[in-house]
Amino acid sequence: MAGGAGHPPRYKAGMAEPTPQTEAETPREAFDEGHLSRGFVSDVATRLERGDDEAVRAMVAPLRPADIAELFALVPENDRGPLAVAIGEALDADVMAELADYVREDVLAAMSVGAVAEMVMQLDTDDAVAIIEDLEDDEAREVLDALAPEDRADIVAALNYPEESAGRLMQRELVAVPEAVTVGDVIEQVRVTIDPATDFWEIFVIDTERRPVGTMRLSWLLTTPPEVAVADVMQREQTLIPVDMDQEEVALLFQKYALISAAVVDGGGRLVGVITVDDVVHIIQEEAGEDALKLSGAGDGDINEPILETYKTRSRWLIANLGTAMVSSSVITMFEPTIEKLVVLAALTPIVASVGGNAGTQTMAVAVRALATNQLTESNTQRTIWREIRVAMLNGGTIAALVGIGTAVIFGNPVLGLVIAAAVLFNIMVAGLAGVMVPVALERWGADPAVASSVFVTMMTDTLGFLSFLGLATMVGVANLS
Amino acid sequence: MAGGAGHPPRYKAGMAEPTPQTEAETPREAFDEGHLSRGFVSDVATRLERGDDEAVRAMVAPLRPADIAELFALVPENDRGPLAVAIGEALDADVMAELADYVREDVLAAMSVGAVAEMVMQLDTDDAVAIIEDLEDDEAREVLDALAPEDRADIVAALNYPEESAGRLMQRELVAVPEAVTVGDVIEQVRVTIDPATDFWEIFVIDTERRPVGTMRLSWLLTTPPEVAVADVMQREQTLIPVDMDQEEVALLFQKYALISAAVVDGGGRLVGVITVDDVVHIIQEEAGEDALKLSGAGDGDINEPILETYKTRSRWLIANLGTAMVSSSVITMFEPTIEKLVVLAALTPIVASVGGNAGTQTMAVAVRALATNQLTESNTQRTIWREIRVAMLNGGTIAALVGIGTAVIFGNPVLGLVIAAAVLFNIMVAGLAGVMVPVALERWGADPAVASSVFVTMMTDTLGFLSFLGLATMVGVANLS
Repeated sequence: MAGGAGHPPRYKAGMAEPTPQTEAETPREAFDEGHLSRGFVSDVATRLERGDDEAVRAMVAPLRPADIAELFALVPENDRGPLAVAIGEALDADVMAELADYVREDVLAAMSVGAVAEMVMQLDTDDAVAIIEDLEDDEAREVLDALAPEDRADIVAALNYPEESAGRLMQRELVAVPEAVTVGDVIEQVRVTIDPATDFWEIFVIDTERRPVGTMRLSWLLTTPPEVAVADVMQREQTLIPVDMDQEEVALLFQKYALISAAVVDGGGRLVGVITVDDVVHIIQEEAGEDALKLSGAGDGDINEPILETYKTRSRWLIANLGTAMVSSSVITMFEPTIEKLVVLAALTPIVASVGGNAGTQTMAVAVRALATNQLTESNTQRTIWREIRVAMLNGGTIAALVGIGTAVIFGNPVLGLVIAAAVLFNIMVAGLAGVMVPVALERWGADPAVASSVFVTMMTDTLGFLSFLGLATMVGVANLS
Repeated sequence: MAGGAGHPPRYKAGMAEPTPQTEAETPREAFDEGHLSRGFVSDVATRLERGDDEAVRAMVAPLRPADIAELFALVPENDRGPLAVAIGEALDADVMAELADYVREDVLAAMSVGAVAEMVMQLDTDDAVAIIEDLEDDEAREVLDALAPEDRADIVAALNYPEESAGRLMQRELVAVPEAVTVGDVIEQVRVTIDPATDFWEIFVIDTERRPVGTMRLSWLLTTPPEVAVADVMQREQTLIPVDMDQEEVALLFQKYALISAAVVDGGGRLVGVITVDDVVHIIQEEAGEDALKLSGAGDGDINEPILETYKTRSRWLIANLGTAMVSSSVITMFEPTIEKLVVLAALTPIVASVGGNAGTQTMAVAVRALATNQLTESNTQRTIWREIRVAMLNGGTIAALVGIGTAVIFGNPVLGLVIAAAVLFNIMVAGLAGVMVPVALERWGADPAVASSVFVTMMTDTLGFLSFLGLATMVGVANLS
């Protein structure tokens, strides 16, 4: 593959590209605070509908690949195919690599197999694989058949690794040198043998078995005297990534050790590829952002996802929660005789459950986040649970006092105030404990704490909230409350 | 500053460092799935308490800076000071740059002003500033006074930029060359003038006014013939970062354009610094992960935050939610006569509110995420609202049917089933609309949608859930329901 989907250097003399700020004959300002403006996007849509492809091409010409990708996401779904056709070659491999998943599907659907194959050949392995993965099986086969044999081999090899593994993420284009050479040798070798379109940030030093023994940043190559041996200047401390490592783990390593690139090794410890930080940044962002979506049962949470898929994910979650809501509500029916005699309990019960639910969600969000970032490990689980108990005592005390006094004053009933205060304190303590212990337990059992925690925690805070309040009220006796 | 907090190249001949896999005399395996093992951490704590500093030093010796930083986070709060003292010089600038905020405070408290100043001088501007920011005012002044004048000037200049701005994030050490030179000139100039300890990934090409006109990746320098002019091979397309840009915006630009480094410019467009991706990765991760915490009112959500601060943040949120819960519960009291006659309504009412609340949280999580990643802009707001309405109709229909049939069967009461089904459908539609419109409106008004959305949305789904169900039940009449 030509490598360097990023920005291949072009040094044909005189081939100065226009700067992106060029005043194209775009009817409205293209940008508004870093993203494409509403006026620009709707102007593109208007011209597409009019069939004025030339005007669309002119509007798109000054945009950068990431901006064109954004444009595809912002125009209505039905315009994505026509836009792809209209802009022709401006829809290049760089743009394709930047497209969001669901948007890319719409665009690919509008392209011929030949056009897709041509684009794939210009991409780094990792980006090419991402596109092939998105195609239907028969389309993928057609595209693979249309590729040059070496490209096909690389992609098929990558597809043999599990989804979301380092093997899918890595690119095979890299620079590796033996330990014995000097810095001058390396510079010479790079100049002679490496395609100028290949982007690389570090070079890898390998032994005779192709096992990585060190890395060198390019800036070190440039600032070290040429006669110095690579072995004397390279960094021996390496972060080696097993080819089957999950991409989330890869992202955590990049973050922890502030890596720009890292060697990927096979089971025998041999260098097979390289992952660079720009391939990992979107994973870091996705994985970190996913928690809020998972905690709420919103699945991918992509606003470009087809509606029926969104419906499937979200309704499954709502049904699960409906089930738990019915279970906890059945607790209320147990206390019907009490409520019949003191109807105000019906209005107060949801407050106890709601406060507990909120406290549980807070603790849960913190615990899930700490687990995801490896900050909550076996070493500090006990300490963290104890910490949450203390926070719950403080919060519980405060909220219980407020609710208790409020109820006592509003209903002129101090005993009722005491009952609800006790129930709220108890429920916030439950919430604090469940909020940290449920995610930790799920993680230990190998489940994703972000996905399943909130169903359990909410059920506990609802059920125990209803039970403690109505149970206590029943024990104290309606006669004493009213 | 010496630059390169990362890994300065060391080419004193023969100074091969031990590989990190070295078998130190650590009593238990240091690592367990990429993070420090529980046994190792507790062994460190035991030796600290025994005062066996030498053993602690030996255990820490084979660890990398990021691992030492992790160790500080994992040992109990009280052990952080003693650990800092015990390991002495192993606590270097690299470790300090990696420490989490609250942990760093504990460590700094155990260090002398002189030691802090010495460490600060070895850091890049951005990392140095991060440490000075953390100190109390008088300590910060003492440390600044102890610095070399140039270092002090750089740090004071950075501190003059607003918090969380590009100016605080950038480092001033960079390589800039004029447009007229050749690639060979640049390589020569770098070798002669740049301190080998400075890490850089791209060089910047500037005009006579020091305004950036292009960038060159180091790999291009190495693969381009020396006689080619820089102007012919550099990339003119640049992402320039204004020095006062918010760090969240900076992170979005790095992500969107897959940048490794970017030039920072002042108001006059002159190059004043550089931001590299490793400084931005933790911001991307933090900002993306923040939403889940903000949506639940958990503030920073740092498990190392002092308990009283956690209490302050979380209780404020719980009090706000208590207020809204009381408002919506007051709706229930309006219907006391109806409930008195048909107590089962008291058990069913929370179900209607709960289902609506869950549906609202889903939509809200999606909308907040899409806003944070610039995927939901003015161009597609209308389309996204319409999308959520359709999803809400599907979800509402499904859940309403389930609840309605369930209620009709369990209570042998089809009219009651119809009433609750209608209320649930209505409430899920409200949730879908509010879930997207509230965050969008807050964003337009300049508020953070992640922080304030859920209070509003929950209040709407609770209040309207109670109102629609009990109102409808009252209209239909208890006589027809029981």
